Amino acid sequence: MNPTNPFTIGLDKNPANYVPLSPLTFIERSAAVHPHHVAVVDGTHRYTWAESFARCKRLASALQRLGIQEGNTVSIMAHNCHEMFEAHFGIPVLGAVIHAINTRLDASNIAFMLDHAASKVLIADREFSSVIREALDQMKGPKPLVVDIDSPQATSGDRIGEMTYEDLLASGTIDFPWTPPRDEWQAIALGYTSGTTGNPKGVVTHHRGAYLNAISNLLAWDMPRHSVYLWTLPMFHCNGWCFPWTLAAISGTNVCLRKVDTEKIYELIEKEGVTHYCGAPIVHNWMVGASPDLRSKKQHKVQGMVAAAPPPAALLASMEENNFQITHVYGLTETYGPAVVCEPHKEWEKLPIGNKARMNARQGVRYHMLEALIVADPETLEPVPADGETIGEILFKGNNVMMGYFKNPEATENAFRGGWFHSGDLGVMHPDGYIQIRDRSKDIIISGGENISSIEVQDVLYMHPAIQAAGVVACPDTKWGETPCAFIELKPGNESLTAADVISFCREHMATFKVPKHVVFGELPKTSTGKIQKFKLREMAKEHAV
Amino acid sequence: MNPTNPFTIGLDKNPANYVPLSPLTFIERSAAVHPHHVAVVDGTHRYTWAESFARCKRLASALQRLGIQEGNTVSIMAHNCHEMFEAHFGIPVLGAVIHAINTRLDASNIAFMLDHAASKVLIADREFSSVIREALDQMKGPKPLVVDIDSPQATSGDRIGEMTYEDLLASGTIDFPWTPPRDEWQAIALGYTSGTTGNPKGVVTHHRGAYLNAISNLLAWDMPRHSVYLWTLPMFHCNGWCFPWTLAAISGTNVCLRKVDTEKIYELIEKEGVTHYCGAPIVHNWMVGASPDLRSKKQHKVQGMVAAAPPPAALLASMEENNFQITHVYGLTETYGPAVVCEPHKEWEKLPIGNKARMNARQGVRYHMLEALIVADPETLEPVPADGETIGEILFKGNNVMMGYFKNPEATENAFRGGWFHSGDLGVMHPDGYIQIRDRSKDIIISGGENISSIEVQDVLYMHPAIQAAGVVACPDTKWGETPCAFIELKPGNESLTAADVISFCREHMATFKVPKHVVFGELPKTSTGKIQKFKLREMAKEHAV
Repeated sequence: MNPTNPFTIGLDKNPANYVPLSPLTFIERSAAVHPHHVAVVDGTHRYTWAESFARCKRLASALQRLGIQEGNTVSIMAHNCHEMFEAHFGIPVLGAVIHAINTRLDASNIAFMLDHAASKVLIADREFSSVIREALDQMKGPKPLVVDIDSPQATSGDRIGEMTYEDLLASGTIDFPWTPPRDEWQAIALGYTSGTTGNPKGVVTHHRGAYLNAISNLLAWDMPRHSVYLWTLPMFHCNGWCFPWTLAAISGTNVCLRKVDTEKIYELIEKEGVTHYCGAPIVHNWMVGASPDLRSKKQHKVQGMVAAAPPPAALLASMEENNFQITHVYGLTETYGPAVVCEPHKEWEKLPIGNKARMNARQGVRYHMLEALIVADPETLEPVPADGETIGEILFKGNNVMMGYFKNPEATENAFRGGWFHSGDLGVMHPDGYIQIRDRSKDIIISGGENISSIEVQDVLYMHPAIQAAGVVACPDTKWGETPCAFIELKPGNESLTAADVISFCREHMATFKVPKHVVFGELPKTSTGKIQKFKLREMAKEHAV
Repeated sequence: MNPTNPFTIGLDKNPANYVPLSPLTFIERSAAVHPHHVAVVDGTHRYTWAESFARCKRLASALQRLGIQEGNTVSIMAHNCHEMFEAHFGIPVLGAVIHAINTRLDASNIAFMLDHAASKVLIADREFSSVIREALDQMKGPKPLVVDIDSPQATSGDRIGEMTYEDLLASGTIDFPWTPPRDEWQAIALGYTSGTTGNPKGVVTHHRGAYLNAISNLLAWDMPRHSVYLWTLPMFHCNGWCFPWTLAAISGTNVCLRKVDTEKIYELIEKEGVTHYCGAPIVHNWMVGASPDLRSKKQHKVQGMVAAAPPPAALLASMEENNFQITHVYGLTETYGPAVVCEPHKEWEKLPIGNKARMNARQGVRYHMLEALIVADPETLEPVPADGETIGEILFKGNNVMMGYFKNPEATENAFRGGWFHSGDLGVMHPDGYIQIRDRSKDIIISGGENISSIEVQDVLYMHPAIQAAGVVACPDTKWGETPCAFIELKPGNESLTAADVISFCREHMATFKVPKHVVFGELPKTSTGKIQKFKLREMAKEHAV
């Protein structure tokens, strides 16, 4: 109350006019308004919103009976399946925190995370039983109770838990009261980022941010009610970019996909009438690279969201030819997934494909619910000029920025220094206010004292018609300090391309000092999301050190 | 911090991860992302988002120089014009409160409001100079500084202020720092509800609620980026249902309309490519009742949002024939305008028009960002059975429920009793979870101890092909206590319809005790929003008392 402001008197919060924001209210609404609409398609399982919500209530109730309460962590390691979707609601409604594990991790990483998160329960697909058994052995602290997802779609693995997920659900009740969190500033999820050095950091997000970013996804994408969303993106990845909650808001349909397989993808697009999906550029590449037979199954327009790397011009062109519309987004685990969108302008539609691709290759502008996005000197916080050239660090401010790193006050403080979230990504600000990543701090190549953006070199390589994928990293060099080393995956049938061809192509399109000194052909190491693993390339590049 | 919950330690709010919610950030975003897109069309004025934002900054800066600060009220009495739109941003960014005045009010009402709100500044279209001069004379407290909107479109009135709106803007600077509110629980607007007894009550809303309801409008309507919105709804009415802020969120275009005039409406729909508009059923009626020549100007599909009264079947049918799609919403000034939507189901599309209209006539389900909506006994708060028959009071809970009534703790406490906002509207809950209004508490007719819903009787009257509009109220009756009295406006060319015809039509469609005892023909008194003024009908009905 401020006595000089009459609008602070007698106008306080009360239970009728203040409710903590939480995306968990969305599923309750969909179950009430569209109870018979299909919420989840997973193999032969089809659950309506009413059924899905009932299962979430059973899960919550069953976990509560096991003693799970506010502040406890429940871990889950699963493919994109209905259980994973349910976990995004049934765990946090208890005030507990969902920790989704990257399915590609090895036992030591998993053991570290289970210990660090002090997980009370681990729900896991039996396909991962072998690595999980090993991880449990390696744990130092108390082990979680293990619940098996005994999926009929699992192709391997044993049951190693004390009960199955269905047993667990059977022990719960649908009469569980679905109450929002006490406080919107309450943790909803914990997600570990794969650091290149040291242990992974645990990103903690909250109900308020998840609510806002789930809605921001809708605004960035103009995504209407009842959209049909294909899960090409792993749900363990930043909680599927908040899309489990987004889908609940619009009473949409989640079409689950255990593995990225183009045949299965086109089958589901056709059968379920998929309208939207997300993925790294490689996923989109696979889709347009499918056989004409497969591609002909899709007649309607499908919206694709791309992140992790800018979509090259050639990809954009073939996506358009195949009646896909692409929206480019950017974000980090620390920003709940995408928080920046390359919002299209009508004028761009008239541009030649190359220019259009250049516009769309930029990371873009803030999500509606991100309050500020700048490119600035990381120390002085002075924004760089909007000239498209001066490199600075990309800084975020908003409600969809994480609470901090779990049990890591130093890293938290460092990430938030000066009142901004420091992304560690380097970029430029274009005159029209769109940002573009030039590199991760650690990906900048410093050659003879000059900064070389590895992304800029990659972008040129992607222009070459024979190149499928390219990753450029620093190679130690006694003379120059570092030089660019290019790893290249060729399109089938282009094996005659030589390193000299590549270097000569580069010379035509960039300053000489930026031209790769080494060119290595072969399949590139990628993450489960299709992102090229630069730290592996850096290891490989050391072999070429001079 | 809760020491037993590790997720409360070292994960606090800081300037990077917590920003108060405010719809004022939307205009900043549109100005940055779509600076050259047209924000406002008003007569011969066309302002882009960059220009519009610059004008808002000038307004804020100029008001600040006049001494306006946090907690001050700035009143505005204007048609739907660019100045009114700008006021929704330029006033609240100072922490000041925008008070928009209903342009149909008389001097005594305006004087009461200016005194009660302690307005420091009154911005007014010169068309209202005569009533404002009178209101200023009647005021008891300090008078506001008057600023004239000297619109070239004004057809009458004098300049009575100390400066024009353009003079005011010229005294401001575009370098004004656009900072969000200190606190999202800070008043943004004050709107008076026209009570039928006693003085009007001042509804106070805040930044958090305006932000959420502005976005909820998008979700309820699947309203995409760059929608073109025609202002058939007065902006003074619950801040135009939050649509000034909604349009800023999606970088849409505001097409201003001083008066509801079908010729002008169709001209603007055609010329500006209008995609969306809102209004009471009467507005939609006028639109489909326009000459075929006018109607033929609109080729594309247009979305209409209807509130204030359920859209009758005949109206829905002709809207469909004319390629309008109607969404029915419901709310109150206390809920920031619409907070309930009759969310359509695909299955309804196949229904015969009568059944479809019955489904759409229901008020519906909670907005995404309203957390709870029930029909309950107002004393025990026990929900009524979902049988579509048992009448209870419609109660709301959520962030888009007002802060309270200004300087009226008793009314505030009464409205929020039991932790719910009491709407004063009586309704039923259908088995599918959709609510339907049966009446305002005061509109129920009690005849021989039986409750008669005036809306139910009206709905039947609207089914008659000769009836354009109908209002049913209680008529005092010595025998029955009250009896229904019907006021009827006929469609042109149907003047031969008699009271006996109407009564006989009613007998066919309702229980005898509900049939109006009196039928009065003539034009119905309506508010500026096209809502039938029942309190006037009640006065008129007294002449028929027996």
